[in-house]
Amino acid sequence: MRTATRQMKLSAYLVGTGMHVASWRLPQALPGASIDIDYYKKLARTAEKGKFDIAFLADSLAINEVSHPNILNRYEPITLIAAMAGATERIGIVATASTSYIEPFNLARLLMSVDHISKGRAGWNIVTTRDLSGNTARNFGAEEHLEHGFRYRRATEFLEVVLGLWDSWEDDAFIYDKESGVFFDRSKLHRLQHKGEFFSVEGPLNIARSPQGRPVLVQAGVSDSGQELSSRVGEVIFSIKYDFDDAKAYYDAFKNKVAAAGRNPEQVYILQGISPIIGSTDEEAREKRNQLESLIPEETGIGFLSDYFHGFADLSGFSLDDRAKDAGLDRLPMTKTDYLKHQPIISRINPTLREVYSLLTGSFSGDHLVGTPEKIADTLEHWFRHRAADGFMLMAPSLPDGLEDFVDHVVPILQKRGLFRTEYEGTTLREHLGLPFPVNRYV
Amino acid sequence: MRTATRQMKLSAYLVGTGMHVASWRLPQALPGASIDIDYYKKLARTAEKGKFDIAFLADSLAINEVSHPNILNRYEPITLIAAMAGATERIGIVATASTSYIEPFNLARLLMSVDHISKGRAGWNIVTTRDLSGNTARNFGAEEHLEHGFRYRRATEFLEVVLGLWDSWEDDAFIYDKESGVFFDRSKLHRLQHKGEFFSVEGPLNIARSPQGRPVLVQAGVSDSGQELSSRVGEVIFSIKYDFDDAKAYYDAFKNKVAAAGRNPEQVYILQGISPIIGSTDEEAREKRNQLESLIPEETGIGFLSDYFHGFADLSGFSLDDRAKDAGLDRLPMTKTDYLKHQPIISRINPTLREVYSLLTGSFSGDHLVGTPEKIADTLEHWFRHRAADGFMLMAPSLPDGLEDFVDHVVPILQKRGLFRTEYEGTTLREHLGLPFPVNRYV
Repeated sequence: MRTATRQMKLSAYLVGTGMHVASWRLPQALPGASIDIDYYKKLARTAEKGKFDIAFLADSLAINEVSHPNILNRYEPITLIAAMAGATERIGIVATASTSYIEPFNLARLLMSVDHISKGRAGWNIVTTRDLSGNTARNFGAEEHLEHGFRYRRATEFLEVVLGLWDSWEDDAFIYDKESGVFFDRSKLHRLQHKGEFFSVEGPLNIARSPQGRPVLVQAGVSDSGQELSSRVGEVIFSIKYDFDDAKAYYDAFKNKVAAAGRNPEQVYILQGISPIIGSTDEEAREKRNQLESLIPEETGIGFLSDYFHGFADLSGFSLDDRAKDAGLDRLPMTKTDYLKHQPIISRINPTLREVYSLLTGSFSGDHLVGTPEKIADTLEHWFRHRAADGFMLMAPSLPDGLEDFVDHVVPILQKRGLFRTEYEGTTLREHLGLPFPVNRYV
Repeated sequence: MRTATRQMKLSAYLVGTGMHVASWRLPQALPGASIDIDYYKKLARTAEKGKFDIAFLADSLAINEVSHPNILNRYEPITLIAAMAGATERIGIVATASTSYIEPFNLARLLMSVDHISKGRAGWNIVTTRDLSGNTARNFGAEEHLEHGFRYRRATEFLEVVLGLWDSWEDDAFIYDKESGVFFDRSKLHRLQHKGEFFSVEGPLNIARSPQGRPVLVQAGVSDSGQELSSRVGEVIFSIKYDFDDAKAYYDAFKNKVAAAGRNPEQVYILQGISPIIGSTDEEAREKRNQLESLIPEETGIGFLSDYFHGFADLSGFSLDDRAKDAGLDRLPMTKTDYLKHQPIISRINPTLREVYSLLTGSFSGDHLVGTPEKIADTLEHWFRHRAADGFMLMAPSLPDGLEDFVDHVVPILQKRGLFRTEYEGTTLREHLGLPFPVNRYV
């Protein structure tokens, strides 16, 4: 079934009008896209037309007045992928869900249910929910955000429970013998009987394993504890690095961790997040980027950055077209994870404050990803062949055009170069990824 | 939009091969139906062809070796209705979800998400999960089942939170002004700031109201505290009474409670559960019933009943064809809710033990509902016209035939008599039911 040569994996990050915080202001944008089911179905079909492995849905459990417009009013991702399953036939569909604010029995069930609904195409992007402001905690009865180490201890045990519940039924447990009246083999039904620090769960789960065994496990793994967990259980790893050297270093280090955990590094795929801007010429692409950046309202941008850097940098008197270094943003003693993640690129390219805002709100298109389809394909091929990535998470700055352009113009080049499939070979997400069917623990 | 005369409401209870515990053994049954998405989509389309108001999904949060075969391995209902939404266009879709084992923020979000996905066709069947064995509690970290009064106090507060979160955004909060860069009106975003006995929830919810405002609230309301809650908030009430007098008494008493709670009793619909068996002659229908009953394995049936009546009646030496009164089942000092509910009919018709088993596992077809389509339509018309019911929950003993027969043969008679719609008049579930659009509390 599998092609012999290493193939790139592609995932499409689907979010309303796109990752860029001002994308809803583009003339062609549908500003209500984040709550338009027909729009999402169409995005998923576009990604499927491009033979993507995955359509990916992010999530958060709290909003406030300065949240990204595309997350203020949006679908809960598990119900959304259940709906997208019916609008597609082959593409994998991955929903983000946090381990911090739900019971493992409920989440195990919701996820396995969509894995059945999609006939084995589901995946779970495991997050623990970073929540520095405590916004999320206050939606769930807690006064303060859950401390990082606590969240990862809980996540580790949560995963044990979920994986255990998913094995409640052996694959051949259901006999359906009408003659004798025996519906299932009682010896193939198992109770987990889990008792741990956070959870006590008896089982069994009231749903069997799916056509792919169980949902594919996706993880970001930015922090050390995140990487620790994802190197042990993650099957697809989502990272964002803005240049090749950083990506390469991350890739090598992470694959070593996977090997150290006793797993096969070839069966854990690292996808690098990319926000390409595609034009028929490099100049046209750069103009598109400038158009997007110019749509950030001065007041909103400076307001956001002032809040974000409060106590570390004074932005009064600065405009969005000023440079990061002039405002002293390149070397602050801040410990926010996203600042630490972005600090090297801020320091290296000295972006405008406008670009810093885009970066912190999810979309940054470096020069190597702004240009013609050939230029973008060259970048991806370089990263892929030199093992800085096993594939890419397409975080299009604007949608649906950012996905459509990629599918219509970049994918055919990757296919022509033999880097990417021209047709789905299997029917489940595990088959697309070349991951083996997981054996039930009780067999 | 609404027809002037009172119209019957119809809901189809969809569960695998049907309500009857042995329905999976019928020659035509698909025993894996409870986990077959194409089968469920077809059921929903059949109900929609019959212009039903609702396709209804029950639920439970635990199973054991003696559970009904159709609930051992089945979809989580909210994800299932998300998938069914895409396979249908008009019919309302109602999922059961318990208030006892999930955070209100999560459930508010899941339900509102499917209400959007279905474009305003979703409903929530509110349950608190009866769990005498403690099976469910042990899947959620508790040692014992939650006491009834506790569950209803929690449910009452849970509903306050959910209804409050659903009003987080006023209906015209989103402005989408591309020119000025204003996405939404901050004065129309509201934080609930709920602090109560069980929950502390700040809000806002990260999803707006749906095309029908919010999901329709469905409730069973068997117990006193259940009826107390459902008379205050329920919009559709689901009850099971086996004869007209009981149903009429329940109907009158419940509507009085609704009026006493300050609500309009005409906008709360009582659906009586029915398990009709339809034949081209009454004799053929009776044979169908006998065929179903005969498929209960002697050992399974007696085993179930022995467990069920343990400590109250000794069934050793009895066979499934013996009568309830001979085994002393008609007047036991048991306090199990389902026994209390069924005790009058056991006492009145003195069923076989086989029928008692069917009754306790969800399916009982009294003589008034076994026969030709005309006979069944007569029964329904009688109950409806004399206000023992506003409509019916079709709990077909076997599926898909029990639903198909009803849609093909009973519905046309009801339509001809002017008792039931011949076409959907609106697009949302509230419109089907003639319920007003709920006004946001902050307006």
